[in-house]
Amino acid sequence: MFKKILIANRGEIAMRIIRTAREMGIKTVVVHSTADSTSLPVRFADEAVCIGPAASKDSYLKISNIIAAAEITNADAIHPGYGFLSENAHFSRTCQKHGFKFIGALPEHIEKMGDKASAKATMIAAGVPVVPGSEGILESAEQALELADEMGFPVMLKATAGGGGKGMRAVWNREELISAYESAVHEAESAFGNGGMYLEKLIQEPRHIEIQIAGDQYGTACHLSERDCSIQRRHQKLMEETPSPFMTDDLRKRMGDAAVKAAEYIGYEGVGTVEFLVDKDRNFYFMEMNTRIQVEHPITEQVIDYDLIREQIKLAAGEKLSGVNYFPKMHSIECRINAEDPYNNFRPSPGRITNLNIPGGHGIRVDTHIYSGYQIPPNYDSMVAKLIVTAQTREEAINKMRRALDEFYIEGVKTTVPFHRQLMDDPDFIAGNYTTKFMESFELDESYVIEEDED
Amino acid sequence: MFKKILIANRGEIAMRIIRTAREMGIKTVVVHSTADSTSLPVRFADEAVCIGPAASKDSYLKISNIIAAAEITNADAIHPGYGFLSENAHFSRTCQKHGFKFIGALPEHIEKMGDKASAKATMIAAGVPVVPGSEGILESAEQALELADEMGFPVMLKATAGGGGKGMRAVWNREELISAYESAVHEAESAFGNGGMYLEKLIQEPRHIEIQIAGDQYGTACHLSERDCSIQRRHQKLMEETPSPFMTDDLRKRMGDAAVKAAEYIGYEGVGTVEFLVDKDRNFYFMEMNTRIQVEHPITEQVIDYDLIREQIKLAAGEKLSGVNYFPKMHSIECRINAEDPYNNFRPSPGRITNLNIPGGHGIRVDTHIYSGYQIPPNYDSMVAKLIVTAQTREEAINKMRRALDEFYIEGVKTTVPFHRQLMDDPDFIAGNYTTKFMESFELDESYVIEEDED
Repeated sequence: MFKKILIANRGEIAMRIIRTAREMGIKTVVVHSTADSTSLPVRFADEAVCIGPAASKDSYLKISNIIAAAEITNADAIHPGYGFLSENAHFSRTCQKHGFKFIGALPEHIEKMGDKASAKATMIAAGVPVVPGSEGILESAEQALELADEMGFPVMLKATAGGGGKGMRAVWNREELISAYESAVHEAESAFGNGGMYLEKLIQEPRHIEIQIAGDQYGTACHLSERDCSIQRRHQKLMEETPSPFMTDDLRKRMGDAAVKAAEYIGYEGVGTVEFLVDKDRNFYFMEMNTRIQVEHPITEQVIDYDLIREQIKLAAGEKLSGVNYFPKMHSIECRINAEDPYNNFRPSPGRITNLNIPGGHGIRVDTHIYSGYQIPPNYDSMVAKLIVTAQTREEAINKMRRALDEFYIEGVKTTVPFHRQLMDDPDFIAGNYTTKFMESFELDESYVIEEDED
Repeated sequence: MFKKILIANRGEIAMRIIRTAREMGIKTVVVHSTADSTSLPVRFADEAVCIGPAASKDSYLKISNIIAAAEITNADAIHPGYGFLSENAHFSRTCQKHGFKFIGALPEHIEKMGDKASAKATMIAAGVPVVPGSEGILESAEQALELADEMGFPVMLKATAGGGGKGMRAVWNREELISAYESAVHEAESAFGNGGMYLEKLIQEPRHIEIQIAGDQYGTACHLSERDCSIQRRHQKLMEETPSPFMTDDLRKRMGDAAVKAAEYIGYEGVGTVEFLVDKDRNFYFMEMNTRIQVEHPITEQVIDYDLIREQIKLAAGEKLSGVNYFPKMHSIECRINAEDPYNNFRPSPGRITNLNIPGGHGIRVDTHIYSGYQIPPNYDSMVAKLIVTAQTREEAINKMRRALDEFYIEGVKTTVPFHRQLMDDPDFIAGNYTTKFMESFELDESYVIEEDED
């Protein structure tokens, strides 16, 4: 087992890794920027090395400085957390080359899964369902019609140079297709100077449901059930839960098997996540694979009593997979508490925390790096805490989340606490009736804001 | 179900009750003394009523004021927590008389179990093992010898007026008995002016192991497994764990059955605890019954996924028992964090908390009412937090407790954090090799104190 792990990250995930390492008797080194000198990970790691100024590119992304810190402190492994360099194949390879075990994916797996086209091709080869679509650019409206007939309507026309919804058309039947194609090409040409189009099956009422997987160096993989991450805003997950309220035993088995097949096909080592879109008829399609630990991993830990960071460290150290396919025994929900103003377009709200009360008690877990008096730097991700509740049933978990949010006071900055509190009262959310489109029609209600104490 | 519960308590247990009530959709009223006006329960309860000055006898023990507060706020039930009026039969009866459901034991059960002699007689009648001993005062040394021969050596001679060890003699064989009796009588006469003696079997290497029970109004009771509370100082529990490292499946079954027998014999309603002494040969003897929720109840909740306060409220509302005999699936440890100076004879250390970091992450539960800036009043119990860890095995739980204690910073006052940190490193504790005598030979090591931050 490793004697000392260097953590190339900050914030709550740095704390998360320190905690498990300490419980395993492994020493930790945390690297940090000048903006994070007074952070909790710096206080609680066995050693801390300042590797540069606040700007990420000069510190948390500065590979040479991180490798130097690992050499100076005599670490034998490097944990990248999530974000930053966690899915950087060059960093994974550089760690390897310098004799540090990278507690993340092998460079070839990061490369294979990091490129959308190669990931899709790999999944097709592995027999994992992907969103059906044209191979490359369409040659004509007629070819689009032929393909759409094959895969069935509705379909989606997408400009290859597209972005911001421009050059995109949902097409519901064959009568509409030709004219939609022509107008989309025209729009794409004027917007991007490139009228190239491709076609995909339109996934109706899509849900983002992902499967946690783990694999060892000996070719064995297992899945650790699903997380529903459909509540998103601009592709940023806001809240996650497991089990998914949309899940059935049959669907979980099919998705779990597909995820394990994907992991075993590429010989994946470590923990990872296979993300799927699931349509209203419970067909599922590979979206992407995350070759790292995810922000939302704690809800999985809660429902199956399993420390994913420990498993990740053990797998990196060459141990055999200790898990088997797991199924949730409880219900767990995570709210990402961000220092953002929900009523001002979720604008980041860095600053000093003047007053703090973190919820506690039965079924509450909080993963955070903040404390009363902490100065949230403006340089990084705005997530300041993960509030995780666990209960026997979904209804109890929602009740518990409500009361925990009511107890969560973070004064001095704006946070997403009132947004989550409103979400927990939303009838569609309560009914489990939500897709990735949920936030598009969600109307924020400012009455959920609790005024700061005058004391 | 109740609409509004008045909480006749303070501190963490008031928070604990507010949390579950809120999760159940029940409104709460908390009563408080002037010393607790800025406390978290006052902030988080739906209503708060000041019932008197700091001194407990004028506030938390002032029955008339509490009843008046319940009447003013239109509560329909009163939860006494632990301590204060929780085992006061007169209070239970007064609540009843004024039409408030007392979320605790019936007055007759409090009376029956509150008196040692009547409790012992009841348990004998119920067929629950008690410590064998003389009935009443011994008439002579010869009678003592006869009884000791019957019950077997070693035995304990105890002065009926005794205290502080005076007039007590452990007697290991019949040869010693007559002279021990005479010297004990002599000592008791000079110390208390009363030479009356009684005899009990000496429990060797005793452990304090208690069984959590719950019973409904329809005569059904169940047990919820054990808690080992042997680590005590002057009969104050310091740390509790479940399962007991001394437990066997057979002993758990026998003790569980005895506790259920005790509860069913008296027709006990609500949650309660039957405390036993267990000797080195795993014989167990009834010690006393606590007719209330206990401080250490969370470790039971952790290992069996069961909210004991919710169960208590539901039972008081007349619901049927939802539990069955439970057996622990995990290991859980609670450290009582007291504002006391372990290196100064555990002297209370009230004052202002200038800096606070509460541990978090996987497997950590903290039940507390403190916050950064909180002024711990000198008037009440010195417990400021319960740190509870849960893991798959005892070894993992101890590792987790170590790292959680390392994260627990409470600056501005002295606390028992360093004592617990040392306890987690103690070889006998780690081996599970401890009795109620453990603390008598425990040598405190001041190097466990972490110096306060200069920032």
